[in-house]
Amino acid sequence: MRHHYFSEEPFQLESGEILPNLTVAYDTYGTLNPERNNIIWVMHGLTANSDVADWWPNTVEKGKFLDPDKYFVICANVLGSCYGTTGPSSINPATGKPWCGSFPKVTIRDMVKAHRMLARHLGIEKIHEMIGVSLGGFQAIEWMVEDPDIAENTMFCATDSSCSPWLAAFNKSMYMAIRTDPTWGEPRLDAAQNGLATARSIALISYRGPFAYNMSQKDAEDKPDPFFHKVQTYQEYQGQKLCRRFDVYSYVRICESGDSHDVGRGRGGLKKALSRIKVPTLVIGINSDILFPPACLEELAESIPGSRLELMDSKFAHDGFLIEHAKINDIMQRWRKERQES
Amino acid sequence: MRHHYFSEEPFQLESGEILPNLTVAYDTYGTLNPERNNIIWVMHGLTANSDVADWWPNTVEKGKFLDPDKYFVICANVLGSCYGTTGPSSINPATGKPWCGSFPKVTIRDMVKAHRMLARHLGIEKIHEMIGVSLGGFQAIEWMVEDPDIAENTMFCATDSSCSPWLAAFNKSMYMAIRTDPTWGEPRLDAAQNGLATARSIALISYRGPFAYNMSQKDAEDKPDPFFHKVQTYQEYQGQKLCRRFDVYSYVRICESGDSHDVGRGRGGLKKALSRIKVPTLVIGINSDILFPPACLEELAESIPGSRLELMDSKFAHDGFLIEHAKINDIMQRWRKERQES
Repeated sequence: MRHHYFSEEPFQLESGEILPNLTVAYDTYGTLNPERNNIIWVMHGLTANSDVADWWPNTVEKGKFLDPDKYFVICANVLGSCYGTTGPSSINPATGKPWCGSFPKVTIRDMVKAHRMLARHLGIEKIHEMIGVSLGGFQAIEWMVEDPDIAENTMFCATDSSCSPWLAAFNKSMYMAIRTDPTWGEPRLDAAQNGLATARSIALISYRGPFAYNMSQKDAEDKPDPFFHKVQTYQEYQGQKLCRRFDVYSYVRICESGDSHDVGRGRGGLKKALSRIKVPTLVIGINSDILFPPACLEELAESIPGSRLELMDSKFAHDGFLIEHAKINDIMQRWRKERQES
Repeated sequence: MRHHYFSEEPFQLESGEILPNLTVAYDTYGTLNPERNNIIWVMHGLTANSDVADWWPNTVEKGKFLDPDKYFVICANVLGSCYGTTGPSSINPATGKPWCGSFPKVTIRDMVKAHRMLARHLGIEKIHEMIGVSLGGFQAIEWMVEDPDIAENTMFCATDSSCSPWLAAFNKSMYMAIRTDPTWGEPRLDAAQNGLATARSIALISYRGPFAYNMSQKDAEDKPDPFFHKVQTYQEYQGQKLCRRFDVYSYVRICESGDSHDVGRGRGGLKKALSRIKVPTLVIGINSDILFPPACLEELAESIPGSRLELMDSKFAHDGFLIEHAKINDIMQRWRKERQES
């Protein structure tokens, strides 16, 4: 169920810039029990939204690891997005028009600050399980480093404790594509559609990896045009599809928040920051993920005391966390059993 | 030493389009022996040129596998390139101006047709070793399928027998970036520089992989701007650097030739076509290559009778073939020893 939290207080960003107010869109599933100890907070990836049941199919269901009969599941749309939380597509009260490119840059820490305000508003003092996937993992790790007592258990999947040069190179290629679009910068939410479509095409490559592409986009042996590949149509289509549900300014601001990610910044480095996380932690990597390769998850797990690494066997690269919901479910259920036993 | 072969005959492309004439730029190193059995023909990658000693350092040297004291090494610039062979930057005799975007699409088969004309011109009936890396491997495999007796030995490195959907997805993202540039299509060789720079940024990602990026572009822990990564400057710089040595029309035509690659086309499929190659063949893959992953080289080797697969251990992904010249050298020398022994 979709809700909105509204704060009339000015919201100060890490950069010092100030948003005049803040709206956070969030979804909840299930019921908070009287002991208030059945809360699962899920943090979403780049272009997703607060409706976990929509973007993570077969998880918010009876018998699955986000079972709404057992758990009170919350997911908040991130700051800077266009799915209800304040971002470039929101109205700037000073002008009465959407912020577009004038919306300030936000960091992962700003996103977490907004999540924490929502948690306080809801009277949440303890989260039973905090779950973060991909960019959601950035937020979850950041939140736990900032406030290590907020959750009893954490699961970080296909993610990292800082933005690697590798991820920043993908992001930079996307910015270059977007800035090549002559309508980039125009104060309208449908600016730079070609640039945004190209950025999506680049991003998909990083999510899917070779196996998934070669399996799902295989060409017929007798294609009439030797230069044609059906994946060309697919990339175009996926680019246009994103343009219908996302604006370029929100997209760039969220990607940039990824660039800003570094839980060690101002805290004596990554190792020291991560050592603050002392609760049982499950780190899930995907063996074919090219964006967050196994070595990156191994390093993350090594730096978090009491964490356990699970490398999931999947051919679907980064998107494996969405596609392999059955495997994720098994891993989560096994982890819960282990925790109860220990 | 740079040479030029010029043919005044019209050159018919696979598409049926006709180039009014043909120039092929090529470099040679060393001396052809009287027995004419010391020829090594090297085929270059996407944006390289005929000067192997330039783009493949530490190979055309005494004691190395392209030793000019022993071998007569030839490399020809590919059709469609801007390094001396006919391409979009050449003058169209009909207009007296560079072809630019009006230069027709060329296939890998067209490139090989030009190589074969050069070989005939030079009176070459037998090549001792044919070596193709990356897009050069496309040409080498195509040539051997078309004329299986031309070479006594072949080495294909970090390449494939057809353009995979995965490679086509990278190419498509580059085309989308280039076409977003409003100056794309303008009849000048410095058109679409921003698009070309973005394409290069995307391509570099596919060549380098995560390890090389994370090692060479590591950020300082105390960087003042949380959104900044030095890799951002690097991607911009590399993009601009390519613009200084390449034009967008040549770049697109060569990438498109990659899309066209399929040695099985009109020959009963890949397996049947590859079974024509019966000479001793060494297939070299790089275990961290994301563009041509190990599985792709394994499949290639399995389809070529009498071939041997060597998976090179390197962290430098596709670019490993350039960086790990010492390892390539060892592999080549070992392979030659084996051949003499058998």
